Amino acid sequence: MKLQELLGIDLPLIQAPMAGVQNHALAAAVSNAGALGSLPCAMLDAAGLRSELSALRAKTAKPFNLNFFCHSPAPADPQREAAWRSALSPYYAEFGIDPASIAAGPGRQPFSGEMSEVLEEFRPAVVSFHFGLPSAELLARVKACGAKVLSSATTVEEALWLQERGVDAIIAQGLEAGGHRGHFLDRDISRQLGTFALLPQMVQAVRLPVIAAGGIADARGVRAAMALGAAGVQIGTAYLCCPEATTSAVHRAALNGPEARHTALTNLFSGRPARGIVNRLMRELGPLSPTAPGFPLATAAIAPLRSKAESLGSGDFSPLWAGQNASGCKAIAAAELTAELAKGFVAR
Amino acid sequence: MKLQELLGIDLPLIQAPMAGVQNHALAAAVSNAGALGSLPCAMLDAAGLRSELSALRAKTAKPFNLNFFCHSPAPADPQREAAWRSALSPYYAEFGIDPASIAAGPGRQPFSGEMSEVLEEFRPAVVSFHFGLPSAELLARVKACGAKVLSSATTVEEALWLQERGVDAIIAQGLEAGGHRGHFLDRDISRQLGTFALLPQMVQAVRLPVIAAGGIADARGVRAAMALGAAGVQIGTAYLCCPEATTSAVHRAALNGPEARHTALTNLFSGRPARGIVNRLMRELGPLSPTAPGFPLATAAIAPLRSKAESLGSGDFSPLWAGQNASGCKAIAAAELTAELAKGFVAR
Repeated sequence: MKLQELLGIDLPLIQAPMAGVQNHALAAAVSNAGALGSLPCAMLDAAGLRSELSALRAKTAKPFNLNFFCHSPAPADPQREAAWRSALSPYYAEFGIDPASIAAGPGRQPFSGEMSEVLEEFRPAVVSFHFGLPSAELLARVKACGAKVLSSATTVEEALWLQERGVDAIIAQGLEAGGHRGHFLDRDISRQLGTFALLPQMVQAVRLPVIAAGGIADARGVRAAMALGAAGVQIGTAYLCCPEATTSAVHRAALNGPEARHTALTNLFSGRPARGIVNRLMRELGPLSPTAPGFPLATAAIAPLRSKAESLGSGDFSPLWAGQNASGCKAIAAAELTAELAKGFVAR
Repeated sequence: MKLQELLGIDLPLIQAPMAGVQNHALAAAVSNAGALGSLPCAMLDAAGLRSELSALRAKTAKPFNLNFFCHSPAPADPQREAAWRSALSPYYAEFGIDPASIAAGPGRQPFSGEMSEVLEEFRPAVVSFHFGLPSAELLARVKACGAKVLSSATTVEEALWLQERGVDAIIAQGLEAGGHRGHFLDRDISRQLGTFALLPQMVQAVRLPVIAAGGIADARGVRAAMALGAAGVQIGTAYLCCPEATTSAVHRAALNGPEARHTALTNLFSGRPARGIVNRLMRELGPLSPTAPGFPLATAAIAPLRSKAESLGSGDFSPLWAGQNASGCKAIAAAELTAELAKGFVAR
């Protein structure tokens, strides 16, 4: 079955869910343009999700995708937290922040029974997961709502694992992709492949539709992904400068500047490797630090630095999530961008 | 100008030069099939190059490419060499190798005046460089022979640097590519992009033809690269199992096995990061070791281990060079493989 039929959409294009830089507004605009808009839910509680879903449904009658994380949160580790705060102490001093004032916070919650209840209420057309899948019981509840289920795979092994557990389609997340790496079977980053290598090998290995993600920035990229056997594409970075996104001013400036050419995987902002534009914190501590607390605990200690720096117009301490190809970022309406990207589906 | 006209070939496809696993036989077969065969010259001295060129010219009247490295060889560092041999000592003991018997050896020579003389004698149609370009004086001598000059770029900055210095076309080496990374302006591996991200950004930044390399394994990959704006493609890994290649039996077995799914950049075999299939040495020492001597000095101390292990049918100590997509490796004649790949140039 074609991806469009499976998901009930006109264009086999998914706007990648991007927690922290978008809400229902971007999702609704993309869904109304005939593609699949996504709402990132990992940073919402049940009340927040209900509120976003009500706003989303008010803006579109089209299918949309709800994205959840399904990690096992790292247990609190006071010793590691102390080492991390000590590594950050010169920055606290520089900005006059009292470390004692920083609240611990989980940052991101995994998918849960409480969230399932919201899904049962709103019955979304599509639900996607990152970092694997929730428990079989929770997954069954999601499917019982009628939602089609997607999840990300960063290796052929992960794609086969997801297929065995009954997902409807698989997102091939190439190493170029921005934001959190979705790997869940093996932490060895060297196992993760670029889109050009990952996509055709995954297409060959599974019988499900494979959605290409990572490095796709324009219609040419869409055309290339389809040539490699993709059933559709998932695009995030290109949407970050649309007016419907909530991307901060410093983040937008970085995406449009030469610094966007240099991204790296970093665990400093959350505790898990995620791709963002290299900034001062990543340069000075190294993008991947063994001192950073586990996911999602690293977020709390950075938050006040980020907030203070952003208030001064600086992205030095912000997660400037971006893929390796930010050349498609444009300050145009999401519907217009979607129409431009969709030209890649038309045979030349 | 089209790449075919620039290089005098029928198909805009270059067989990647692969030192250690091929000689004139593969180059001649590919050139005779209408693409551009390449002879890797970095491990040849002038006499060896003359002999290979005579054999190549005897087998084809078509254009071919000669590939040279243009690194600055690392100076001998007895302390580092001793540390490296100490790290390898358990393996020497395991195989009964007397470390005192191991000759130091440069392994690979940069392009030189002596090599220029051979070029002046044989006047090849195309010369490609890896690790930047030779001195302006040497480059002028190469051009004076009538050769078109190519070089690899791993970032947009490197592509602009090469364009300024007068190359005729640029090879965009995506991170998926097998063998040595060609970076020469910055050693930070995080600056290197996947093909999907690198290629379109390079095409946008330079006015020269850009040749896509990295992750291209079959006609679909060729089609995808052309969709991303490439003027042509360079393919290496897919040719490794052709009968005309000199790829060892252990290397061929690894390329055809599940282990080919896991490659990594390693400096253990030469001193510079190069992509190969993960094997015992890479697993046990870590693929990138700060102890390994600089390029090309690391080769010497590994050589007897490799030789001994290979004689026992094991690739545990061999550089099993491969890109991230070995799915196109087939034990078919290079001409047949070239014809299959060329289907990617035909509009669907």
